[in-house]
Amino acid sequence: MDKDIARIGAFRYVAVEKHILARIESGELSPGDKIPSLRALGARLGVSVSTIGQAYLELERQGVIEARPKSGYFVRERPQRLPRPRVRTEVSAEPRQVSRNTLIRQVLDTMGRDDILPFGVAKTGEELLPAKALARIMTQVVRGNPEASLRYETVAGNERLRRQIALRCLDAGAEVTAADVLITAGALEALFIAVRAVTRAGDNVVIAAPSYYCFLQILEYLGLRAIEVPSCPQCGVNPSDLASILRKFDVKACILTPNFNNPDGALMSERAKREIVAMLAERDIPLIEDDVYGEMHYGPKRPPLMKSFDEKGLVLTCSSFSKTLSAGYRVGWILPGRFHDRAFDFKGTTNVCTATPTQMAVAEYLSQGGFDRHLRSLQQALEKQMRTMRALVGRHFPAGTTATIPGGGSVMWIELPGGVDGGDFYFRARDMGIGVAPGAIFSTQDKFNNCIRLSYGTPMTEPYQEGVRRLGELATAMLAEGGDATARPGTIAAMQQ
Amino acid sequence: MDKDIARIGAFRYVAVEKHILARIESGELSPGDKIPSLRALGARLGVSVSTIGQAYLELERQGVIEARPKSGYFVRERPQRLPRPRVRTEVSAEPRQVSRNTLIRQVLDTMGRDDILPFGVAKTGEELLPAKALARIMTQVVRGNPEASLRYETVAGNERLRRQIALRCLDAGAEVTAADVLITAGALEALFIAVRAVTRAGDNVVIAAPSYYCFLQILEYLGLRAIEVPSCPQCGVNPSDLASILRKFDVKACILTPNFNNPDGALMSERAKREIVAMLAERDIPLIEDDVYGEMHYGPKRPPLMKSFDEKGLVLTCSSFSKTLSAGYRVGWILPGRFHDRAFDFKGTTNVCTATPTQMAVAEYLSQGGFDRHLRSLQQALEKQMRTMRALVGRHFPAGTTATIPGGGSVMWIELPGGVDGGDFYFRARDMGIGVAPGAIFSTQDKFNNCIRLSYGTPMTEPYQEGVRRLGELATAMLAEGGDATARPGTIAAMQQ
Repeated sequence: MDKDIARIGAFRYVAVEKHILARIESGELSPGDKIPSLRALGARLGVSVSTIGQAYLELERQGVIEARPKSGYFVRERPQRLPRPRVRTEVSAEPRQVSRNTLIRQVLDTMGRDDILPFGVAKTGEELLPAKALARIMTQVVRGNPEASLRYETVAGNERLRRQIALRCLDAGAEVTAADVLITAGALEALFIAVRAVTRAGDNVVIAAPSYYCFLQILEYLGLRAIEVPSCPQCGVNPSDLASILRKFDVKACILTPNFNNPDGALMSERAKREIVAMLAERDIPLIEDDVYGEMHYGPKRPPLMKSFDEKGLVLTCSSFSKTLSAGYRVGWILPGRFHDRAFDFKGTTNVCTATPTQMAVAEYLSQGGFDRHLRSLQQALEKQMRTMRALVGRHFPAGTTATIPGGGSVMWIELPGGVDGGDFYFRARDMGIGVAPGAIFSTQDKFNNCIRLSYGTPMTEPYQEGVRRLGELATAMLAEGGDATARPGTIAAMQQ
Repeated sequence: MDKDIARIGAFRYVAVEKHILARIESGELSPGDKIPSLRALGARLGVSVSTIGQAYLELERQGVIEARPKSGYFVRERPQRLPRPRVRTEVSAEPRQVSRNTLIRQVLDTMGRDDILPFGVAKTGEELLPAKALARIMTQVVRGNPEASLRYETVAGNERLRRQIALRCLDAGAEVTAADVLITAGALEALFIAVRAVTRAGDNVVIAAPSYYCFLQILEYLGLRAIEVPSCPQCGVNPSDLASILRKFDVKACILTPNFNNPDGALMSERAKREIVAMLAERDIPLIEDDVYGEMHYGPKRPPLMKSFDEKGLVLTCSSFSKTLSAGYRVGWILPGRFHDRAFDFKGTTNVCTATPTQMAVAEYLSQGGFDRHLRSLQQALEKQMRTMRALVGRHFPAGTTATIPGGGSVMWIELPGGVDGGDFYFRARDMGIGVAPGAIFSTQDKFNNCIRLSYGTPMTEPYQEGVRRLGELATAMLAEGGDATARPGTIAAMQQ
């Protein structure tokens, strides 16, 4: 058996896919070339014919190869060119009051709806989560100790759970113990607590452009001013861009998602992480690190936390199990560093502690040791879904569209060509029963109005593939209509007036 | 069978207790009198001898009667006089910045500790809660729908649960539907959201003196100023006191616990509730109503919500199942009235939604219809524990002590005689392994330093009775030492300097 393929184990067909893709990328296989038959490749790689078949089916779905009747499989003649977006979008660095909430709320309203395809929500499909194992474990913990499950947890949270989280953080490079962990109701509460702990109304806070829209909501709620630093969809925030902001403005905090930034999937290099942590430490500026996607990497290694370079307790890392185990359990955490007391106070004052039974269940699940295995299959499934999504966008969206190639997480950032307005696109897609997230909600500035974010967290079954096809048709139609929609009623530009 | 006793059903012995107590209060039985034998009273009331025995044991524990060897039961010779506290404590009505948090945090630190008797925590003992039924139902809901239990709930919360809550509010006089209910992580989050929704930093907020210390923490966190209105331990806030504050100051909100105020157990009359709601409505001032204890009444009727008199959507009612079903589930709610959108926004921005499985379990528990039956037995148990606690305090605390007679809830408010300092008392009790809540944490002013709050939410087993005895000894010793401890190191007065 081929060594690379043997190593993969459970998901052998994914390795076969990669094998073929690598040969196409290297030019060994060109458009129009016939690729090996199922039987031939199976024999060569030492895997079953059905595994090869599964891989070819997948590649066909992605638009990479095509079956020709009675002739076998061929590399597609003219695979749609779908470039990555240009390096970064320039934004103004002036501190700005945030007032995106009305807009964001309108968009969020459709996010929970069952009758809308969920490309607008950055969630992981339940098909990919260990629903049955968690249900069994929940049963076990509440039946095993009915009275304990009724009691308040401590403000800090379940101790076994905190120990497990501390171990995982150690693996990601951060030297912390259970005492450094505070359990929260999801990562959003962790972020809220973090921002609350290090700022006062009126302060300047640096965020990336584009950034998770919830950062904007938190800043708006707390009366903070946003300074946006451009994020390259490939490698995130450039330390020198941040340095020039720090020279110009009085910055009180910085919020970054170094590992697979939402919405553009950017992954910061270890060097950039180290440099930024040092730069902020020099000025005693707290860094809030959102690591919700850190464990959803497609590469072999988990990217390190910025917290691992933190020598002064200035990095507040926030994360959760919402994307990897269960969003509904609302189990997240913060490593508040030197802001420990303020974070604990704030948690205690706002809702006492996080729910007990869900913490018990996650603690037990982690202790049983299946989480890493689950993560590996989740990562593989997401990478595959990412490639399928990219192939579908490449096939159905008009020329000039760009799309990121995320190395982790579950969202793809797309630039529409010819001035097609992402907000307008959002409303028209919604009317078709398809959710997308318009680019405008990821920044205080109107620099991303031509973008949309597509989530591929849910397996790409037939209706989902059809959904992407229809989105492509919509983009094509809007491009033909002449793109720029700023004056049209119902667009985001119009709504903001 | 005696009619009153037959009506009680399951807890017949409680009715027997009340029968004897009524005869003592009416003077029919005097101190030193022999009370009927088990057999004689059993025959007269038509209940079993063992039921009478159980009642007598309870009355003996409460110090009301005593067994004399071979002679039977007698009304105790000189039952300790334990008067109720004086009508109300005058406090200054000037708006004050709140800075009680350092003090409160020190006290709270001991509250979760297992090695300390829990008279300091206003919680309901798990022995009184339907732990097994909830564990069974939790199992049922997560096994029945494993994937649903992993999903985000809507921001508003589980719809079945909101319907059940709306029905219960209807019973308490408030005409609301499921759409008016927002599920929160316990009542504390509901209160936080309510205060956040109706105020801005610097605003004046009226609270009762004494008040639940978490109100003070919320005001401090949000930078609000407290105006304290005296609360009579019997009937709560007097409308005319509030009226005079409203004439003098620009008030932006008012927070009250009309049904069994924490810490003094005061119950406001229907008339006062109505008057206050009208008075605030005239000035468009929002009223935040904490109803956490409303369903824990000992009398036959659930006292009405202030929300039931609300015609302008200005009353924001907050409550939870933390005291009646499970604190650890973190399921509470708010009826935000006309502040609906702001409350929803705030919930969504801070933690998306409340945990899913706990909401599902509570919704199912309520739908199965056993909650009212459970509440009745909880109310009876708490009333009994209250009387035991009062009897123990009366027997062991020094003369001059006063104690409230709460008509609901699970806390008793105690004034110590001769200038004994409640803070000092707290620290010395803590060193003995016994928790109490010092009066100072329930107000921004130093008017309650001679008070403590004792919780009787946990059944008064032998070690608990012994704990109260030792508290009484401590109070007696401190009184002998000369009371006033303001200058001594380690007292709250010293800590605040």
